[in-house]
Amino acid sequence: MTAVVNVNRDSACNPPLRSSAVERPMRGYASGKEDYLLRLRKIEGQVRGLQRMIQEDRWCPHVVTQVTSTTHALQEVAVGLLTDHLRHCVIDGGPSSNGDRDGRLDEVAATIRQMVRL
Amino acid sequence: MTAVVNVNRDSACNPPLRSSAVERPMRGYASGKEDYLLRLRKIEGQVRGLQRMIQEDRWCPHVVTQVTSTTHALQEVAVGLLTDHLRHCVIDGGPSSNGDRDGRLDEVAATIRQMVRL
Amino acid sequence: MTAVVNVNRDSACNPPLRSSAVERPMRGYASGKEDYLLRLRKIEGQVRGLQRMIQEDRWCPHVVTQVTSTTHALQEVAVGLLTDHLRHCVIDGGPSSNGDRDGRLDEVAATIRQMVRL
Amino acid sequence: MTAVVNVNRDSACNPPLRSSAVERPMRGYASGKEDYLLRLRKIEGQVRGLQRMIQEDRWCPHVVTQVTSTTHALQEVAVGLLTDHLRHCVIDGGPSSNGDRDGRLDEVAATIRQMVRL
Repeated sequence: MTAVVNVNRDSACNPPLRSSAVERPMRGYASGKEDYLLRLRKIEGQVRGLQRMIQEDRWCPHVVTQVTSTTHALQEVAVGLLTDHLRHCVIDGGPSSNGDRDGRLDEVAATIRQMVRL
Repeated sequence: MTAVVNVNRDSACNPPLRSSAVERPMRGYASGKEDYLLRLRKIEGQVRGLQRMIQEDRWCPHVVTQVTSTTHALQEVAVGLLTDHLRHCVIDGGPSSNGDRDGRLDEVAATIRQMVRL
Repeated sequence: MTAVVNVNRDSACNPPLRSSAVERPMRGYASGKEDYLLRLRKIEGQVRGLQRMIQEDRWCPHVVTQVTSTTHALQEVAVGLLTDHLRHCVIDGGPSSNGDRDGRLDEVAATIRQMVRL
Repeated sequence: MTAVVNVNRDSACNPPLRSSAVERPMRGYASGKEDYLLRLRKIEGQVRGLQRMIQEDRWCPHVVTQVTSTTHALQEVAVGLLTDHLRHCVIDGGPSSNGDRDGRLDEVAATIRQMVRL
């Protein structure tokens, strides 16, 4: 009961080191959690489909096209998660001190750089 | 027995429309087939790991980093498949007529454009 | 004189339609403006270098490597601009209403999607 | 006169170390050279346009969109050059020994990996 009360907006956006083992923090993507899980299960199915294509000796460019389609789906998930995080954990529910907020924005910038491979 | 004999280098590189339903053609990636399957099974495991991270409410930038690592692994597979295809089906074992070879190179170019998102 | 006073933090982050022709708004990247101009001049030099390589009939894979290095430099500029914008125009100096902030975040998300080619 | 004769198809595809300083080799992209130069001049203009946008304090997401459009144009050039190279220097006009051809294909694969940032 108190645990639920403790999971307030602010704790939802605490970075991992400060989240206790007992109460699980809510995350910025919490409201879309089921949707992300659904998309990831579809992507898992696409990866199994790729294995089937290789086992069935399908024409290589067709396999590569399916690989590319799977990476697109994954990157859609990444952009979605990052936007949710920006909205709920950097802009809205973030910490009060500017220092913390700057640190989080730096983390987001580093993540964007990974996504565009810099 | 004869089936094996029929699967010669040339038929290995016939595009899908011309491969018969009876004998399964070998592909440019044939020699590395087990390696590709192994890598794709690992990637499938990574995608399941992503689902676990979402279910366990992990810190969003960490999830995105793992998504990015999974897309990298997929793109390594794509580049590998494409290189095998170039080696065995466009350069080496390709058709004798220049027209066919040009068509295959156009197909490869289109696939590279997909990979770099153009 | 008053013009300078009018260019306060808030007007700095007004989207283009609301910026008057008379006073030029400051932007999120204002403090790094000279640095961005310097980097873009270097990139302009790289593009002229590419023209020279083509004119001098340089070995194709070397030209492609230089093209790739130029696109990296451009994408570094894009990520830098976007981070400055997030810091100064979405998080800090943004509008007071949540509706406006949501619109800006959607715009940023759309821009990230363009950068990763989705 | 003899110089022109010496620039035959085979020497056109010699890697840089073997091209003499006297006779300039033709390259795989030779037939499209003017087109590539035209496209690169346009891209140079786009990069100057980006500098103008920064100088005029344009709205950041609009600048980023133009940066992205410029990187797309550069990557189109890269894919074009690579395809020409594959056609004329790896498949057609390449060296007779399989060893050389393998080396060139490895070089192309490495270049594709750079393009997709692996």
